[in-house]
Amino acid sequence: ELQKLLKEFHYADIAEILDELNLEEAIYVIKLLDSETTSDILMELDEDNREKVLRNLSAKEIAEEVEELDTDDAADMISELPEERQQEVISNIEDEEHKAEIKELLAYEEGTAGALMAKELVKVYETWTVAGCLRRIRGQAKEVTRVHSIYVVSREEKLVGRLSLKDLIVAKSEKKIGEIAKDNVDFVNVNEDIEEVARLMAKYDLEAIPVIESDDNKVLLGRITIDDIVDVMKEEAERDYQMAAGITGDVDSDDSIFELTKARLPWLFLGLIGGVGAFLIMEGFKGLFVEKAVILFFFTPLIAAMAGNVGVQSSAIIVQGLANDDVRGSVNSRLFKEMLLAALNGFVLAIFLFLFVYLFEGRLDLALAISVSLVAVIIVAGLIGTFVPLFLNKRGIDPAIATGPFITTSNDILGILLYFWIAKLILGI
Amino acid sequence: ELQKLLKEFHYADIAEILDELNLEEAIYVIKLLDSETTSDILMELDEDNREKVLRNLSAKEIAEEVEELDTDDAADMISELPEERQQEVISNIEDEEHKAEIKELLAYEEGTAGALMAKELVKVYETWTVAGCLRRIRGQAKEVTRVHSIYVVSREEKLVGRLSLKDLIVAKSEKKIGEIAKDNVDFVNVNEDIEEVARLMAKYDLEAIPVIESDDNKVLLGRITIDDIVDVMKEEAERDYQMAAGITGDVDSDDSIFELTKARLPWLFLGLIGGVGAFLIMEGFKGLFVEKAVILFFFTPLIAAMAGNVGVQSSAIIVQGLANDDVRGSVNSRLFKEMLLAALNGFVLAIFLFLFVYLFEGRLDLALAISVSLVAVIIVAGLIGTFVPLFLNKRGIDPAIATGPFITTSNDILGILLYFWIAKLILGI
Ligand SMILES: [Mg+2]
Ligand SMILES: [Mg+2]
Ligand SMILES: [Mg+2]
Ligand SMILES: [Mg+2]
Ligand SMILES: [Mg+2]
Ligand SMILES: [Mg+2]
Ligand SMILES: [Mg+2]
Ligand SMILES: [Mg+2]
Ligand SMILES: [Mg+2]
Ligand SMILES: [Mg+2]
Ligand SMILES: [Mg+2]
Ligand SMILES: [Mg+2]
Ligand SMILES: [Mg+2]
Repeated sequence: ELQKLLKEFHYADIAEILDELNLEEAIYVIKLLDSETTSDILMELDEDNREKVLRNLSAKEIAEEVEELDTDDAADMISELPEERQQEVISNIEDEEHKAEIKELLAYEEGTAGALMAKELVKVYETWTVAGCLRRIRGQAKEVTRVHSIYVVSREEKLVGRLSLKDLIVAKSEKKIGEIAKDNVDFVNVNEDIEEVARLMAKYDLEAIPVIESDDNKVLLGRITIDDIVDVMKEEAERDYQMAAGITGDVDSDDSIFELTKARLPWLFLGLIGGVGAFLIMEGFKGLFVEKAVILFFFTPLIAAMAGNVGVQSSAIIVQGLANDDVRGSVNSRLFKEMLLAALNGFVLAIFLFLFVYLFEGRLDLALAISVSLVAVIIVAGLIGTFVPLFLNKRGIDPAIATGPFITTSNDILGILLYFWIAKLILGI
Repeated sequence: ELQKLLKEFHYADIAEILDELNLEEAIYVIKLLDSETTSDILMELDEDNREKVLRNLSAKEIAEEVEELDTDDAADMISELPEERQQEVISNIEDEEHKAEIKELLAYEEGTAGALMAKELVKVYETWTVAGCLRRIRGQAKEVTRVHSIYVVSREEKLVGRLSLKDLIVAKSEKKIGEIAKDNVDFVNVNEDIEEVARLMAKYDLEAIPVIESDDNKVLLGRITIDDIVDVMKEEAERDYQMAAGITGDVDSDDSIFELTKARLPWLFLGLIGGVGAFLIMEGFKGLFVEKAVILFFFTPLIAAMAGNVGVQSSAIIVQGLANDDVRGSVNSRLFKEMLLAALNGFVLAIFLFLFVYLFEGRLDLALAISVSLVAVIIVAGLIGTFVPLFLNKRGIDPAIATGPFITTSNDILGILLYFWIAKLILGI
């Protein structure tokens, strides 16, 4: 009865329900349904839950699920298993072609086009006629959920063009494919970074892109579809957002306290180190200022907050620009612009702070010292926030780690140090 | 010659080049090319640049561009114009059907499915035969860049199912469409929020979704395609990322210093207010602590940093969970979990801080006061970071504003206040 009821639901909805059940219940439901549905459900489960469910299935049962999946999902499912189980599952796959294709996909490095692509696609030879082509496609297309483009290859299996089903339907049936195919087909190399693939597909509004061996050897290897790119984009956006908030390792709100601690504590520890650094700086200036201008110490949270906020703002703009590949011009011109911007913002804020301190304390020298150093701190914070992501990016490190605790902590310390130096200079103590 | 050269490029690439040129040069290039290409180029330009270029074209010229665009892009281009120019451009559109469709699209509220959809789609009646259908589609499909699904409607224009081109090719030519159409077609209402549409399309791996009038009246109004959803997703991710960094209003690194200041200064001002608040708190505790435990003041940047970091971490997790629609369970259970998590993190960090203060100052009471209040501050910061986005979300306010300066500023002030209270209690001063 439950079986009948679940048949009505989309597999993505069933997966959502199973994510809420406990393991026993989830496995009960999965054993109830046939592998055609369960394979799709499994791929939609939360990674942690999928892992748990798979641990409770035999290698043969997993192989049955794998048989039902497209090659890209099949390879993903297998790659999540422990090393020795992987071999066991692969040897249990009956369809030899499917097995060989999955093995090929497993060999590509994670994060590359090869690891994201599927072997399923519709391919025709340039020498075929439209009529012959339509006949063959009726066969091939059964194995391919969505056709998107039809890829045209040479006798050496090299990509030479593409066609849409629409082109084929509209064309005269005796025409040769080579004559009606479009030859300006977009493609990516099998080693291309998937974030770059995502950028390309978004830019050119593509729904699928063929993957080739290399620019010299355009052998057609597979195809990447937009639904998987949508997932890549979501994951990337979530990772960057979390990184900016000081969370690493792709956790979500339902994860265990232990997992969440692992993702959060290291960044908090960095913040603690920064706070201790700020303490040591103030401790160093204690003798100088506690008697004559203790009020300076009361503005350190303000200085730290401003340094942190400006740093995060400027790094966020650069990180986003780099991700969209539209940071142009020299590093120097970037820094110069940020300096002007920070100076302008700092000046406006300093006027308010000056008035506040002067009205509150009645001392011109203090008001001047605090507001001048605020401007300096903001300028330096803006420069660091601009420079660090550019530098990381040049070094091949993901600049996204620059926005967040990393930049706020270093800006806190530097800002407070700078603040006391300048105050000392202006107050002449 | 330039004309010939540019013909080789994709319009998205030409737009990228034009974004780098000055206005005069950009307009020169645009007047050089025919409106079939320039209309696509214009739509790919940065919004600021498009606005500038359009200001230099006559209403008639803009209308010519609009004629070449799909209805969704046409409506977008017109909606960016000043009110009185909109009417002028619309009256210059010659194709009456195109004009009427654009007018319809302009009437839908921004951020809804209606404002994102296009009128271009392939539609067949359930009573048609496969053969008749193929014949008609050869006509309709010429106006539709990508077919995706073929939508099946009743005589009253109500959506009753869908077909793929593949289904049509595979089917016998004398069959009725009603017999071969799939009736479990996904759709959205014309008033649905586009972020919800994006969530649906990502979840069900859709490449296009039909838009209907309402659940009661399923008249087919238009279609949303995945390329536009990809743009929606990118924009949303960028907006959330910027909001978390204290930047409002969709700026990028190439915008003017004035625009960037407008986006950044208000949040910095909020930080300034927070810093002044922290100052006032410390000023209030001056009499109590400066003589007996001035060191307490030196830890305020640490306390503020930890309160800010924890608050941002916990709010980021909730904001992301809400965006993915997978924050389940009661508010209380969320808060309880975050309390445990914060207590655990706080405890680990407090041990380090305790040892540091004790070793550095040699005073057990101070070490205890500072580390105990650190734990308390972290717990409260975590609770606020969890509660605020949940509360905003319930109120229908975008919870994404909760991560960033908003939460760090309030946590700074509250954290420092709490810190001094607890220290006062423990030290018994
Ligand atoms: Mg893979
Ligand atoms: Mg696009
Ligand atoms: Mg587009
Ligand atoms: Mg796939
Ligand atoms: Mg990235
Ligand atoms: Mg998880
Ligand atoms: Mg629109
Ligand atoms: Mg999906
Ligand atoms: Mg999928
Ligand atoms: Mg569109
Ligand atoms: Mg949002
Ligand atoms: Mg802009
Ligand atoms: Mg801070």
